[in-house]
Amino acid sequence: MKNLTMSTDLYQINMMYAYYKKGMDRQRTIFDVFFRKPPCGSGYAIFAGLDQVLDYIESIHFTEEDIAYLRSVYPYEEEFLEILRNFRFTGNIAAMKEGTVVFPGEPLIRVEAQVSEAQLIETAMLTMINHQTLIATKAARIVGAAKGDTVLEFGLRRAQGAEAGYYGARAAYIGGVHATSNVMAGRDFGIPVKGTHAHSFVQLFDNELDAFTAYSEAFPDETVLLVDTYDTLGIGIPHAIQLGLAMKEQGKRLLGIRLDSGDLAYLSKLARRMLDEAGLTDVAIVASSDLDERLIQDLKNQEAQITIWGVGTNLITSYDCPALGGVYKLAAVEKDGEWLPRLKISENPTKITNPGYKQVVRFYDRTSDKPLADLIALAEEDIPGDKITLFDPLFPHKRKTIRNYRVKSLLQPVIEQGHRCYDTPSLESIRAYAQEQLTCFSPEIKRLINPHQYHVDLSQKLWDLKQSLIHQERE
Amino acid sequence: MKNLTMSTDLYQINMMYAYYKKGMDRQRTIFDVFFRKPPCGSGYAIFAGLDQVLDYIESIHFTEEDIAYLRSVYPYEEEFLEILRNFRFTGNIAAMKEGTVVFPGEPLIRVEAQVSEAQLIETAMLTMINHQTLIATKAARIVGAAKGDTVLEFGLRRAQGAEAGYYGARAAYIGGVHATSNVMAGRDFGIPVKGTHAHSFVQLFDNELDAFTAYSEAFPDETVLLVDTYDTLGIGIPHAIQLGLAMKEQGKRLLGIRLDSGDLAYLSKLARRMLDEAGLTDVAIVASSDLDERLIQDLKNQEAQITIWGVGTNLITSYDCPALGGVYKLAAVEKDGEWLPRLKISENPTKITNPGYKQVVRFYDRTSDKPLADLIALAEEDIPGDKITLFDPLFPHKRKTIRNYRVKSLLQPVIEQGHRCYDTPSLESIRAYAQEQLTCFSPEIKRLINPHQYHVDLSQKLWDLKQSLIHQERE
Repeated sequence: MKNLTMSTDLYQINMMYAYYKKGMDRQRTIFDVFFRKPPCGSGYAIFAGLDQVLDYIESIHFTEEDIAYLRSVYPYEEEFLEILRNFRFTGNIAAMKEGTVVFPGEPLIRVEAQVSEAQLIETAMLTMINHQTLIATKAARIVGAAKGDTVLEFGLRRAQGAEAGYYGARAAYIGGVHATSNVMAGRDFGIPVKGTHAHSFVQLFDNELDAFTAYSEAFPDETVLLVDTYDTLGIGIPHAIQLGLAMKEQGKRLLGIRLDSGDLAYLSKLARRMLDEAGLTDVAIVASSDLDERLIQDLKNQEAQITIWGVGTNLITSYDCPALGGVYKLAAVEKDGEWLPRLKISENPTKITNPGYKQVVRFYDRTSDKPLADLIALAEEDIPGDKITLFDPLFPHKRKTIRNYRVKSLLQPVIEQGHRCYDTPSLESIRAYAQEQLTCFSPEIKRLINPHQYHVDLSQKLWDLKQSLIHQERE
Repeated sequence: MKNLTMSTDLYQINMMYAYYKKGMDRQRTIFDVFFRKPPCGSGYAIFAGLDQVLDYIESIHFTEEDIAYLRSVYPYEEEFLEILRNFRFTGNIAAMKEGTVVFPGEPLIRVEAQVSEAQLIETAMLTMINHQTLIATKAARIVGAAKGDTVLEFGLRRAQGAEAGYYGARAAYIGGVHATSNVMAGRDFGIPVKGTHAHSFVQLFDNELDAFTAYSEAFPDETVLLVDTYDTLGIGIPHAIQLGLAMKEQGKRLLGIRLDSGDLAYLSKLARRMLDEAGLTDVAIVASSDLDERLIQDLKNQEAQITIWGVGTNLITSYDCPALGGVYKLAAVEKDGEWLPRLKISENPTKITNPGYKQVVRFYDRTSDKPLADLIALAEEDIPGDKITLFDPLFPHKRKTIRNYRVKSLLQPVIEQGHRCYDTPSLESIRAYAQEQLTCFSPEIKRLINPHQYHVDLSQKLWDLKQSLIHQERE
C-alpha cells in the first residue's frame, strides 16, 4: 500500500473540518504516542515501525480521487477540500530510535504540528507503531526463551494479510529472530531467508527416501529434511539417516532434520540419539509446530534436543496478545508563542496523561553500563549530571537516589518542518542495537511471567505540573 | 502491496527448484484449502478473501529484481530462473463464493495446477483467506450478539498494519457490520464510513460545550458527541442535553452521544434516563471501549441502553483468536490422464485429509429452506435428488436419512487456465448473501459458546476411498 493518506479514521477528517470551520485548524499542538502496558505480560517493549511512519509522513497527499470521494461522504465546503488538496505535513516529529527498549508511559513519538496535521496522521502512525512494536517485542521474548538457539520466523500464511507478514518479518528481525521464510521481506529488507520443503513434497514421490534424495540433490549444501510426513521415528528419521550417511560418504553434510508434529521434547531426544548413534552428531534438529516463548522455555527445561526453532502463527500475530494499545494524547497547545500543557483526566490514576513538551532520558550506571531508570521530564529541564533523586509518580514516598551515571536522551528529531531529518540506520544495526540493550537490562525485567517493573519516573517539575493541572481540572 | 508474487515462503521456491531438477515441475496436482476449527469457538465461519486471491493469481509474475534477488539467495540454475521469468499461473481454481457460511474440513478452494504453480500460490492464498475469513467470522459473531443494533468497525489504529485494517474492514462488512471508520476502505469498497470526534477535540476548546457546539455547527445533521472527556454524568451528558435542546429548538436533531469509558451498562441506563427526561428520546447512545461479542451480549442481557456499538481492537484483530489455521493439502496427482487420490496420514484421525478431486454440496429442506447438512463427495459423483443417508465420518454408525431437499453445489469455477472466469459480486450482495444464510442456520449453530456442530459428512464413495488409502498407507 503506497499512499496511506486515506488510511485514517473518518473522525480525523471530521475534526479537521470542524477546526477549519472555527478557524482553529492551524492551532499548534503537541501529541505523544505511548502505550500503557507492554504486550504479552512483558516487562518491556521493543520500539519498531518508525521507518514506515517517516515514509508515510513525507508522502502524505490527497489525490483528486480522494477529494472526489470525500465530497461524496459529506457536503464539506469546497474551500476545505481545497485545503486538503494542498495538504502536506509541515510539523516536527521527535521519536525513539527503532530497536529501543521502551516502557509504559514513555513518549515514543512526539508530534508538534498544526492540529489538523497532528490529527490526520494519528491513525496510520498508531497502526504502524502498534503493529511493529508488538511483533518486535514478541520476537524478543521468543528469542530470549531460545537462549542463543536460532529462531526462524515462519508465519506468513497465518499473518493478518501479506503486509502484516512483511512488516512483521522486519519487526521480528529487529526483535532478534535470525531469518524469515518470507521471500519478499528478504528481498526488500535484506533479512536472511530460510526454507526447506513441505509434506506435499514427500507425498509427490513414490517414497520418502526418493523425496529426500531429490531435495538433497537440489540443495546439496543446505539439506534440511522434514521427517514427519508418514512416521517420524519409524520411517522419517531412518530415511534421513540413510541419506545423511550417503551424503557424508560423498564429503557432504546433511544440515538438519525438521520435526513438525508430535511431542517435540520426546521426539527430539530420540531423534538426537538415533542421529548420534549413526555418527551424524552434526545434524541439527529443527522444530516447528505451534511454538511460542513459553513452550520453547518449557521444552528447553525438559532438555529437548532442538537447536533451531521455527516459529509461525504465535509470532507473526502475537497470538496471545495480538494488539498493542498504543495511544495518542494531546500534551500541549500553543498560545501566544508558548506551550500550554494539557492533560486528559481519568478516574483511573494510571490513565491520567502526562502534560507538556517532554523529553525522556535513561540513566546508565557508569561502572556496569546497566540502565538504572528512565525519567520523563519537561523538554526545557536540565538533567543533573551527578546525582538525582527519583520517585514513584503514583507513590511519591518511594524514593531512590542514584549517582555515578551517564544520561542518554531517547527522543531525537526525525522530521523537521515536514521533512525527514533522520536516516533510518540499516536493519542490521537496528537489530544489533536492540540486542545490545536487551543484554544490558537485568534478567528480572526480561522474565516471561510477572517480570520486575523497570523504573519510569517523572521529574519533580513534570510531577508538580501534572498535580497542579489535575487540581485545576477537578475544580 | 501490488505484486505479491514474492509474498511466499522460500520453501515454495525451493520445492519448485527441486521439482524442476527432477523434471517434475509440470506434474499436475490438486490441492485443497480448508480449516479444521472455526475461530473463537464459533460453530461456523464466513468465507472471505477470494476477491484478493483472484487478483493475485492473475497478476503473478517475477520481476527482474525478483530474479536478481533469488540469484543472490541460492545458486539456482539459470534455466530455472528463466522459467520463473516466464512464470504465469495456468491452472484451474474452484472456490466457494465469498460470504458463504462454511464449516471445518470443507474445501473452500480447490486448486488444480502444475505442482510448481500450486506450491507458489499456497502462502499468499492462505494469508488472504485465513485473515479475511477470520475477520468476517468475528464480525458475524459480534453482529449476532448485537441482535439488530448497529455495529461500527473502529479498529484501524490497532490493526496489524494498514492493510490488515483495510481488508479487515471489507471482511467485517461481509460479516455484517454496518459501517467502518476506515476512510480508505470506504473509498475503495464503498463501505459506509462513520466518525465523530476524539477527546482531544474537546480539550482544544476552552470548555466542552464550546467543543460540542463547534462540532454540531460543522455537522448539523450528523452530530454525535463524545461525552466522557471530563465527567460523563456530571458534565458531558448535561452539556450534550443542553446542546440537544438548543438544536431541537432550531428544528435540528442531536443524533447521539458516545460513551467510551466506564461501566457501559450503568452509564447508558443513566444517560438514557437523563436524555429521556429532557425530552431527547430520539438521541441514540453509541458505545465503544474494548467491546466484543461476549461483552455486547452481556451488556444487552443487563439491558444496557445502547443501540450503536463501535467495535475496535477485538474485531479488527479477532483478539481472542487472531489466526485462522487454514491449511493447503495435496488431494490428488495426475498420472496418465487420471487423478490418483492422495491423503496425508496423521496419528490424529481428525487430521487425516480427504483425498481426491472433490465437490461440496449443501442440502436444504424444501419446506423450511433451512440447511440440513453438507456433504463432501467426489466430483464425479451424482448426488441423489430425493433421498440420501448421511453418516458421521468418524463414527459411521451415526446415520440419518434426509428427504425432501434441494441440493446446492458450493464450489464453482473461478479461474480457468489462469484466467478469471468469475466476476466478484458487489460487496453489498456478498454481505447480503452472508446475512441471508446466517438467518437460515439454526440458532444452536450460531451460539457464541459451545455451539452445536453442523453436519459435514463424507459421501460413501469418498469415505470408502479414504479408508482404502489409509489402509494402503498403513501397510
